Amino acid sequence: MVPHLTTALTGPLQTLERTFLDNATAIERWLRGKWQNHTPPFYGSVDLRNSGFKLAPVDMNLFPGGFNNLHQSFMPLCVHAAQAAVERICPNAKHLLLIPENHTRNQFYLMNVARIASILSHAGLEVRIGSLLPEITETTKLALPDGQSLTLEPLVRRGERIGLDGFDPCAILLNNDLSAGVPDILKNLDGQHLIPPLHAGWTTRRKTAHFHAYDEVANDFARLLKIDPWLINPYFARSEGLDFHDRIGEDELATRVDAMLAKIRAKYAEYGVEETPFVVVKADAGTYGMGVMTVRDASEVTGLNRRQRNKMAVVKEGLQVSEVIIQEGVHTLETVGGGVAEPVVYMLDHYVVGGFYRVHGERGRDENLNAPGMHFEPLAFETCCNLPDCCAAPDAPPNRFYAYGVVARLALLAGAVELEQTAPVEVATA
Amino acid sequence: MVPHLTTALTGPLQTLERTFLDNATAIERWLRGKWQNHTPPFYGSVDLRNSGFKLAPVDMNLFPGGFNNLHQSFMPLCVHAAQAAVERICPNAKHLLLIPENHTRNQFYLMNVARIASILSHAGLEVRIGSLLPEITETTKLALPDGQSLTLEPLVRRGERIGLDGFDPCAILLNNDLSAGVPDILKNLDGQHLIPPLHAGWTTRRKTAHFHAYDEVANDFARLLKIDPWLINPYFARSEGLDFHDRIGEDELATRVDAMLAKIRAKYAEYGVEETPFVVVKADAGTYGMGVMTVRDASEVTGLNRRQRNKMAVVKEGLQVSEVIIQEGVHTLETVGGGVAEPVVYMLDHYVVGGFYRVHGERGRDENLNAPGMHFEPLAFETCCNLPDCCAAPDAPPNRFYAYGVVARLALLAGAVELEQTAPVEVATA
Repeated sequence: MVPHLTTALTGPLQTLERTFLDNATAIERWLRGKWQNHTPPFYGSVDLRNSGFKLAPVDMNLFPGGFNNLHQSFMPLCVHAAQAAVERICPNAKHLLLIPENHTRNQFYLMNVARIASILSHAGLEVRIGSLLPEITETTKLALPDGQSLTLEPLVRRGERIGLDGFDPCAILLNNDLSAGVPDILKNLDGQHLIPPLHAGWTTRRKTAHFHAYDEVANDFARLLKIDPWLINPYFARSEGLDFHDRIGEDELATRVDAMLAKIRAKYAEYGVEETPFVVVKADAGTYGMGVMTVRDASEVTGLNRRQRNKMAVVKEGLQVSEVIIQEGVHTLETVGGGVAEPVVYMLDHYVVGGFYRVHGERGRDENLNAPGMHFEPLAFETCCNLPDCCAAPDAPPNRFYAYGVVARLALLAGAVELEQTAPVEVATA
Repeated sequence: MVPHLTTALTGPLQTLERTFLDNATAIERWLRGKWQNHTPPFYGSVDLRNSGFKLAPVDMNLFPGGFNNLHQSFMPLCVHAAQAAVERICPNAKHLLLIPENHTRNQFYLMNVARIASILSHAGLEVRIGSLLPEITETTKLALPDGQSLTLEPLVRRGERIGLDGFDPCAILLNNDLSAGVPDILKNLDGQHLIPPLHAGWTTRRKTAHFHAYDEVANDFARLLKIDPWLINPYFARSEGLDFHDRIGEDELATRVDAMLAKIRAKYAEYGVEETPFVVVKADAGTYGMGVMTVRDASEVTGLNRRQRNKMAVVKEGLQVSEVIIQEGVHTLETVGGGVAEPVVYMLDHYVVGGFYRVHGERGRDENLNAPGMHFEPLAFETCCNLPDCCAAPDAPPNRFYAYGVVARLALLAGAVELEQTAPVEVATA
């Protein structure tokens, strides 16, 4: 039930985990204080990378799509956390409309939707699923691999409210990241709770805005623990006005990549790390692991062939990429069944509710694992992330997972801050 | 890991559980609404009895003493629920003082105190333990069977605050049920959160006040589900002015016992139940299973011998019993390892966080199991109580446990209502 965890991790990470364990009570109190001032997103997932010398988030998803990968044993935690989220956001809610991605054949994704619906009904909401797909013009039942089924219904707009035929929800939960833009049917709603808000979608969201917020959170947290924030925070920079097809902006991008590699080298020297630095260039509004490139030398971004340029130029829903985040790469030292692995931590409200490993057998320790060929190890967490065992060694699984849960919650907190900072003016002054 | 559950249960309970499952979403929403209007106790435990035709609480403890009996796998649920409780009651709390019962040799109880302290530190509180025992005049370290230790410190009163030497807590959690009265050192505190409030202690608490509140809750819930409230609610009555030593009030008690047995017989006839009705007479302010008597015929309460009278006359801390609750007895159909068993459900805030079975090998299905010779089966719940499996049969373990979790939360809600109804006037108008 427990995946293989690299046990050769020594040095700074052990020190970091020891620091987390020694300060667990203070950390939880600090987080509690933060959640008094910042509303946690309804849900979120965080991709972490653990290099042995560094433990950092590399992506924070506000429309998590892998609840089906959580082991069944995490369900009670999910239900309790969902109850807390509902009580916080819409305590009187009775009906909830769930709007998923426009997939009807991705069975894994449909299982995720079914799992979210199940968690929310256990939390006391009547849940129905409304599809943005134009071809869903009537109630459509999709079979799921586990023998259950999922019913999609066409959305119905009535004045400033959205619902289904015979279903007027108090709350609408988006599990659609709006990469294709905000559909008209979701605009200018009034009197219904839209969760998360529209500006959380990739129409407007930018990874750099998230990591800008994460800088603040990580610095603040590092002051609490008196640690170097770099140990939990990857460097990042932004490049805009790019056109990969027409090779516009390549030189500027190369300059920034070079500057970041130099900064990483300096840190590696400071900590005696002998790895080769790398950066990851990602579409600033991209998701689904699309538009991602690992770069070990600046010359690589000016020497892209046509296939590589095509890959970087377009992401989900055919969106053109003109802005990228240049992110310090964090090696992953973890392997599961011989494949390189990175932990993904799931949260509902401000609670860690589970996690799994993303595993890729064909990729290296310094590559993006969110790519065709990956699989998930749903049983990966031996214990939940909120329960360190202070008597065990710092690298014992419960303690490693506690550290993962802490860093994931820092990224979630950054997500909350980011949503405040990026809220449209009319919302911010409401 | 899973205890034997009697599988011969058919008839009304199956119907009841089917009703719970079919209405799970409505039940959770109903409970969410109730918790908007009533503050859940910080913690509580409920003793249930499951007779096959009836599933009902028989006791609701506001100072639960068996957290050590919960399986380790319930700990993440405990920590999350404790975080929610702290956020609700004292979000800015940093230091918490835990005041336990005056036991220093009861290793099981000390393990319970250690477990509570552990849950609260994981939830982000610095916890220290202050003892009411006069002989604890300096810091005293007690060894625990698991190799860990528990440190008791003498309480220090400073003006209207209580604490320890060098420790001024924001919150005080009582795990002492105040059977011996409210100690002066706890009176007239100001500016600190005292959890639960003093009137939750057995100095003032009465079982009949709890079941009076439970009547309201059960009737309300029964209306929601359109069921006979008797299926989840044992009859009760009260007798006062008793003196078991001097045989004062025996006749009146016998009359009431007789009247209740007649009411139960009528219900048994209505439902075709062929069991022998019985009532349980308990000290109205009693706990620890003391001052409890099973009665199958009214003549039994007038024919008590000296030993039986002595047993009923005095409860914990030597308190004289002058008031009793006469409670409809509920047979238990469950057995674990050949012993008669009753489920005990633990809650923190409004969350079910675990449970276990109280098992007694020498007692009958119609007897009090909270007696010397009992033991606990800490692994008893296969799944948590908040997660019914609608596809499985109603008597499948997850579903039975869901029903237990529902009824336990009804009793917890009654505990909340009871604390409101019994609050001293100065608190009620604060």
